[in-house]
Amino acid sequence: MIRFDSDYMEGAHPAVLARITGANEIQTPGYGEDPFCRLAAERIRELCAAQSAAVHFLVGGTQANRTVIASVLRPHQGAVSADAGHIAVHETGAVENSGHKVLTVPAVNGKVTAEAVDALCDAHFSDGSFEHMVQPGMVYISNPTETGTVYTRSELDALYGVCRKWKLPLYIDGARLGCALVSEVCDYTLPEMAALCDVFTVGGTKLGALFGEAVVITDPALQKDFRYIIKQNGGMLAKGRLLGLQFLALLEDGLYFDIARHEVALALRLKKGLAEKGWDFLVDSPTNQQFPILPDAVLEALRADFGFSVWQKMPGGRTAVRFCTGWNAREADIDALLSAIPHR
Amino acid sequence: MIRFDSDYMEGAHPAVLARITGANEIQTPGYGEDPFCRLAAERIRELCAAQSAAVHFLVGGTQANRTVIASVLRPHQGAVSADAGHIAVHETGAVENSGHKVLTVPAVNGKVTAEAVDALCDAHFSDGSFEHMVQPGMVYISNPTETGTVYTRSELDALYGVCRKWKLPLYIDGARLGCALVSEVCDYTLPEMAALCDVFTVGGTKLGALFGEAVVITDPALQKDFRYIIKQNGGMLAKGRLLGLQFLALLEDGLYFDIARHEVALALRLKKGLAEKGWDFLVDSPTNQQFPILPDAVLEALRADFGFSVWQKMPGGRTAVRFCTGWNAREADIDALLSAIPHR
Amino acid sequence: MIRFDSDYMEGAHPAVLARITGANEIQTPGYGEDPFCRLAAERIRELCAAQSAAVHFLVGGTQANRTVIASVLRPHQGAVSADAGHIAVHETGAVENSGHKVLTVPAVNGKVTAEAVDALCDAHFSDGSFEHMVQPGMVYISNPTETGTVYTRSELDALYGVCRKWKLPLYIDGARLGCALVSEVCDYTLPEMAALCDVFTVGGTKLGALFGEAVVITDPALQKDFRYIIKQNGGMLAKGRLLGLQFLALLEDGLYFDIARHEVALALRLKKGLAEKGWDFLVDSPTNQQFPILPDAVLEALRADFGFSVWQKMPGGRTAVRFCTGWNAREADIDALLSAIPHR
Amino acid sequence: MIRFDSDYMEGAHPAVLARITGANEIQTPGYGEDPFCRLAAERIRELCAAQSAAVHFLVGGTQANRTVIASVLRPHQGAVSADAGHIAVHETGAVENSGHKVLTVPAVNGKVTAEAVDALCDAHFSDGSFEHMVQPGMVYISNPTETGTVYTRSELDALYGVCRKWKLPLYIDGARLGCALVSEVCDYTLPEMAALCDVFTVGGTKLGALFGEAVVITDPALQKDFRYIIKQNGGMLAKGRLLGLQFLALLEDGLYFDIARHEVALALRLKKGLAEKGWDFLVDSPTNQQFPILPDAVLEALRADFGFSVWQKMPGGRTAVRFCTGWNAREADIDALLSAIPHR
Repeated sequence: MIRFDSDYMEGAHPAVLARITGANEIQTPGYGEDPFCRLAAERIRELCAAQSAAVHFLVGGTQANRTVIASVLRPHQGAVSADAGHIAVHETGAVENSGHKVLTVPAVNGKVTAEAVDALCDAHFSDGSFEHMVQPGMVYISNPTETGTVYTRSELDALYGVCRKWKLPLYIDGARLGCALVSEVCDYTLPEMAALCDVFTVGGTKLGALFGEAVVITDPALQKDFRYIIKQNGGMLAKGRLLGLQFLALLEDGLYFDIARHEVALALRLKKGLAEKGWDFLVDSPTNQQFPILPDAVLEALRADFGFSVWQKMPGGRTAVRFCTGWNAREADIDALLSAIPHR
Repeated sequence: MIRFDSDYMEGAHPAVLARITGANEIQTPGYGEDPFCRLAAERIRELCAAQSAAVHFLVGGTQANRTVIASVLRPHQGAVSADAGHIAVHETGAVENSGHKVLTVPAVNGKVTAEAVDALCDAHFSDGSFEHMVQPGMVYISNPTETGTVYTRSELDALYGVCRKWKLPLYIDGARLGCALVSEVCDYTLPEMAALCDVFTVGGTKLGALFGEAVVITDPALQKDFRYIIKQNGGMLAKGRLLGLQFLALLEDGLYFDIARHEVALALRLKKGLAEKGWDFLVDSPTNQQFPILPDAVLEALRADFGFSVWQKMPGGRTAVRFCTGWNAREADIDALLSAIPHR
Repeated sequence: MIRFDSDYMEGAHPAVLARITGANEIQTPGYGEDPFCRLAAERIRELCAAQSAAVHFLVGGTQANRTVIASVLRPHQGAVSADAGHIAVHETGAVENSGHKVLTVPAVNGKVTAEAVDALCDAHFSDGSFEHMVQPGMVYISNPTETGTVYTRSELDALYGVCRKWKLPLYIDGARLGCALVSEVCDYTLPEMAALCDVFTVGGTKLGALFGEAVVITDPALQKDFRYIIKQNGGMLAKGRLLGLQFLALLEDGLYFDIARHEVALALRLKKGLAEKGWDFLVDSPTNQQFPILPDAVLEALRADFGFSVWQKMPGGRTAVRFCTGWNAREADIDALLSAIPHR
Repeated sequence: MIRFDSDYMEGAHPAVLARITGANEIQTPGYGEDPFCRLAAERIRELCAAQSAAVHFLVGGTQANRTVIASVLRPHQGAVSADAGHIAVHETGAVENSGHKVLTVPAVNGKVTAEAVDALCDAHFSDGSFEHMVQPGMVYISNPTETGTVYTRSELDALYGVCRKWKLPLYIDGARLGCALVSEVCDYTLPEMAALCDVFTVGGTKLGALFGEAVVITDPALQKDFRYIIKQNGGMLAKGRLLGLQFLALLEDGLYFDIARHEVALALRLKKGLAEKGWDFLVDSPTNQQFPILPDAVLEALRADFGFSVWQKMPGGRTAVRFCTGWNAREADIDALLSAIPHR
């Protein structure tokens, strides 16, 4: 069985494991107050060219999203998200459990558009009886999006412009951030992206770590007391050094981006192969998630040897499925998968 | 610097690390639905002689506590806890953040007494206007307690009897459960303890794991939909297998209890040495946390070479401090510490 | 200025005021434990032919909705609602503030359809990884709906059938319930409706009371400890007798339905007059809210003398507005309004 | 039966009722945006000499407390309260339901002391690992307190000084504020008190209104978006004018203070009479709640003719009970009660 179900089906890149193992007997304070976390935070600030950013390390993505949103919003405010956004669909209402509505706008190619946010805010803040509705309090996007698409510089510019117009912090969920940054459609650097939002995460789980999401808070107004919110939400890891160690392994020598390039390259190899066989895609993804639309009979035959995720039933006995490449994806496995899928 | 600040200042027992490393390239489904978690859950059911128990693996203790309590209570109910209980003091209001009051009773030797719970319930349920007060909805204890003490069989019997009388689930936070079970004052087995409560945790973080708390729900009425609550609270680890692997390493061959015995033995070596030097203790702890009361001048001198936690200021220029032993504690370090502390 | 903005722009029906005034100096226990509330609850049980129903009196509608929903759901569950539903749009996220997502389905003529709920549940409960999404936990409808439409018997039958199939309590928000029951399209009695749901409210605020919503819980499984949840949500009125007195005034001799008939009759007089002048309506409402689509210039001219609510901008320089009739609506005022609106 | 159980056992002062009745057919906008609420708010600002204060009208006390606290605090912050404080004991965890811990300090004569708050804050903010504990975020007091005592000027000065030192807003729950202000021990005016806190309520329910608490927010930093929080917590009354009308009746000509003086005078008549008979009191209350300690046999005999609240069991077969005087208390009833109680 070769699994492309997701990008978290194996352990960690060997360099990450080695780092954890190497420091195993060193004693450090707990809860992220150790030298490894300090160094990793410093490294992230350098990579982002954001010297005054606060950097915190959390274990998982849902945890990071609910913690950031709980920290930013007042009770009557909601987080604006694409209707396909992770917080809107696949986090079991973690944001609502924290007391906040997710205010959805229709995803366009998986993305939140500046126009949609502007229209939502205009409708809300221009209406005299607005206090009967949840107030937009921040904007949440993921980059790459849940369907693998990547925001362009002009999209981010426009969106952040609208956010500043309405004084809404912009939060970028970067669970697969590396894949966005190395994709061929990305026309900005990490420091440039960091300057176009107020909070973002650098996801490790899907890019070679055992686990770990770095939360980078560039806006000083949002930095206060964030560790309290982490602890309250059950996100403060006792042996917090594990997070620092992993991000050091990933970020010291560019391994994070090497892994991202590897994941994307193998996903594009699959994309190219499927396109050559005549298959369509649900979305034109430039990153490590690919969503081909295949006949159910073909999928049924694949199941014996390959893992993938069912995404969306389509008309005509076809289904859009997701193939995902992780840090350890192999060319041979991609080729085996391509061999197992017939021409259209 | 030799650190006794806590029992989570290093990595994991080598056998735990080896298990993680050994399975690194094996592909499995995520979110705890892998074979390792299934086997570890089965192993825990065997060890607890609780074949119908539901077993879930979470990353940390605060996360486990807030998730269990959120799952058990209705909104108007609170969790009864000792006033010194971890949920009452050191979790940044995680339980309250979930909407529930922590109803405190005075700790007696760190413990919740059956009498106190009975009195609280009697006062609440016998008063006609009880709906103006939070309803006791469950009882939370930790074993060992926050000050290292261990419930006896008769204490648990009495407490669980009161819990059944008032129909309150009893939840035992076993962050250091191994240390309780191997302590010389413990007069019950793990299956016996499992039969005297409705939910409990088997803590890994402080007993040789990198992280991990197993939640064991023995009461079938409390098992429904628990995975939703985990996910909602940000506690569902993508590479959940890491938890299964660690608990397999700890529990397959009794390593968990070996580590517990090691931690307790070294703590008792320290206790004995300090007692021989004439020092008093804040509490008579039979487990891996020791709370001697030492002059501030002595503590000041220790700081250069030894780490410990300040617990409580005492009269007469003295302070109760905590020394904690972890899986990797060394006799030589204990002896060095003892050498550095003068006779009273 | 004649106001049709809403049905809560005046005080109470004189009979309601008289009842409050008449009992002013009588001493009773507080918090709804007085004889007036007991009598009113008994009267409601009779009118609903629901002898084992629990009846509670709350001050307002948002309060009633958030209290009922908080009482019914576990944390990971959401309330299914039309996307146009009051809880989804106009309660400032009160449900989310209680920790629950509102799961929306597209409103069809303002209503939730059995098909939509069935499809939602089928998608949720048939998917193996459902714990990543909020679980449908109850269904919320309003009757009449927010746009004045009324569920038919067959619609309720079908909806409640689906609810029972998926074990979801059905909650009917009856803020304007009287208007639904007296409308000409209503083909069921109050007892029949009471048997087709698990909880519902009988709204007083918009039907002649100063304030007050009676919550009727017919399902015994949902009755436990409801008063705690009321108190916790700030809904327990100290002088609770005021609610009992008002519902007694409204319900003892059928005044509630007389008021409903009056409100509906005057709204239909307006509807007929506008239709005769050639104007279209956003929705074909048989109750006391009417939504004509009028040119902006006409509306501008009306504003000097008449109050109404802007509902929805329409193409072609027109706007759908809401005219609402309350307990004290007057024929002469309707006719004055009609006179002020030109033929199309 | 003559009831002294509480001060909310009857309707409203006739002048209040008359005001509601007189305006019954006047049409106004809903939700507190009517001229009566505007005038009443203006009147309160004048009485408090707080021209920039925001004034909002809510229906009840628990509602007011949870709304104010939810508006002021961030998630990781708690409200400091006396352990006997209403929010800590008798609101069914409304504050915790909003996500916040109530941080209790021991009541001294029913009051929170400056010293206790200072010590709590000092312990919290001076401890390097403070993020493991709930952060003090505001201070809640009631004046008069739950046992009828009244803060003195010097106590308020000291407390507010500590609050400013630690940057904690001070919130005064004035459910019976009138009784505090007219009591003989009160050495400050309403404007002076308004200048010694950041938010307070002027309670109407227990001083002649049918219901109603005015929330006065003097600190501009706390005023933003308060109406959203009211609505979200179910506290926005549709016919909000009812609140404005009542406060106008109470405050235009000093009726509020006349009622307070009447309540206090009659309570003191009872206090004097009981003292002359030799009975002791649980607390020396200068306001409209009196807490004599009486033999259980005496109380048993009283029950047939008089209502009162059981407060606290005392040694020696005695019980501290509460007698409360409302706006309609009568001298003859006090004297009848005194006649029914024997000399000690």
